[in-house]
Amino acid sequence: MTRRPVLARTYAELNAASAELLGRAAASHHAGHTSLGLVPTMGALHEGHAALVRNAREANDVVVVSIFVNPLQFGEAADLERYPRNLEADLDLLAACGADIAFAPLADEVYPGGEPMVRISSGALGAKFEGASRPGHFDGALTVVAKLLHYGLPPVPADYRAYFGQKDAQQLALVRRMAADLDFPVEIVGVPTVRDADGLALSSRNRFLTPEQRTAALVLHRSLSYLKEQADRHEPLDVEGALAMIRSVLQVDLDYLEVVDPDSLEPLAFNCQDTPFTGEALALIAARVGDVRLIDNVRLG
Amino acid sequence: MTRRPVLARTYAELNAASAELLGRAAASHHAGHTSLGLVPTMGALHEGHAALVRNAREANDVVVVSIFVNPLQFGEAADLERYPRNLEADLDLLAACGADIAFAPLADEVYPGGEPMVRISSGALGAKFEGASRPGHFDGALTVVAKLLHYGLPPVPADYRAYFGQKDAQQLALVRRMAADLDFPVEIVGVPTVRDADGLALSSRNRFLTPEQRTAALVLHRSLSYLKEQADRHEPLDVEGALAMIRSVLQVDLDYLEVVDPDSLEPLAFNCQDTPFTGEALALIAARVGDVRLIDNVRLG
Repeated sequence: MTRRPVLARTYAELNAASAELLGRAAASHHAGHTSLGLVPTMGALHEGHAALVRNAREANDVVVVSIFVNPLQFGEAADLERYPRNLEADLDLLAACGADIAFAPLADEVYPGGEPMVRISSGALGAKFEGASRPGHFDGALTVVAKLLHYGLPPVPADYRAYFGQKDAQQLALVRRMAADLDFPVEIVGVPTVRDADGLALSSRNRFLTPEQRTAALVLHRSLSYLKEQADRHEPLDVEGALAMIRSVLQVDLDYLEVVDPDSLEPLAFNCQDTPFTGEALALIAARVGDVRLIDNVRLG
Repeated sequence: MTRRPVLARTYAELNAASAELLGRAAASHHAGHTSLGLVPTMGALHEGHAALVRNAREANDVVVVSIFVNPLQFGEAADLERYPRNLEADLDLLAACGADIAFAPLADEVYPGGEPMVRISSGALGAKFEGASRPGHFDGALTVVAKLLHYGLPPVPADYRAYFGQKDAQQLALVRRMAADLDFPVEIVGVPTVRDADGLALSSRNRFLTPEQRTAALVLHRSLSYLKEQADRHEPLDVEGALAMIRSVLQVDLDYLEVVDPDSLEPLAFNCQDTPFTGEALALIAARVGDVRLIDNVRLG
């Protein structure tokens, strides 16, 4: 029988709970050096989130998971409406992963004066790829991450880490960049993507796929794996071949497939047939399957 | 004989110095509740800054003054070049005001990767008044303030306050708004403007005024005082009369004179001859005297 996390609905409740748990941890350590791990989520938790929480659990004395569907990062109201919410199921999953505190604030707690006027600007890195098809998305996402990073700050001296999935590669790169550019006192940790047995990257959107669409969607991972095999063998990357694989699946409408620098997400010239792959890169893919937009990526090198 | 503050050149040095001083303060208090006050400056310190430091000194156990000329908030390189720098004189002034730590980082410490990509966006509030004549100025200013607020965070539990002058009314409103919108764990304190005996608001730019220009510049404060007298008597504000006073001084080229809400800086309709003044407002003025741009403001009500 696992114990449910403490449910904090306000910043004051979060602060009190994390102070108490960090105090207990400090008392039980002889060295007294403690740490807090924050996992920001929008709820609808699945095994991908569970991996974030387990990573945080292994490395920290206190694990806080925030659950907040951020209105700022949804361009269309319909997207925000249909975003799944099920706090009870989320708390059960968090109990199973050993989270200490679930911070699930209401919108009025996070945006007491309505939408914020001063925001985070994600710059050029936020304008491409996902940002190109969702204008303002990353500014909204970084704005709420900035707030959550402040909420989560350990109220007593402790190491501070925040966990983000590698599946949202551009978000992870941007959060890292924000933390560095604005000197947030936190270590950003990226956690590998969790996949179903067939290779599909876990996403809260997968539930909207029909069985046929789901089968079609597997080509995303298949094309990335094709590139990864070449990279592992230090062969030239056959990006044209990967593109052809995707085009052969009629239900999949490709948005982009790009090989980029892992930090700057600047395109790398690996789509040249006679250059053997060396170094480090990220292959990013995004496609629509029916009306479900999916993203995936794989680390090369 | 006053003692010079500890000079910290890096974030690590700042952190170590404030941890030590806060620890000493906690040990000497019986309650153990301590506080840290941060005064962000660009150096070239004068009595206006001294007032900020003295306010911080009265309310906090540890006072940190940052001295950093932020390249991001200068539109023109020439402005940045001619911004006065004199660290030795600044340290003497800080010693006289009782500051504990002077944090004077080099640009490489603050911007190790060059200019930041992820920045603070000041929104509509940053686009008007000073923002209208200096595009990007407030985004750059808030970006470095965000960094400094993170650098200054007390490394041990302590109340945290940051001090800004009311003379830069728009900057103060924006910093307050940023702290609220992004949940910085700090209390923002506004400190009243310091003036020379003749009423001229202290500014590091005043040194660029010729004696004649300086005399002409006094009309800024004169026109604001004229409005304040009316507000104090709950009379209608004679904005037209104030404008006429300014126009009568040939060397003064007015940019704006506006009566606005103190928080949102939205214009208030007080320039109507038959409405008696009630409530709270801010009268903002900006003008060029020669090639020196000056700003001033007065609180009404």
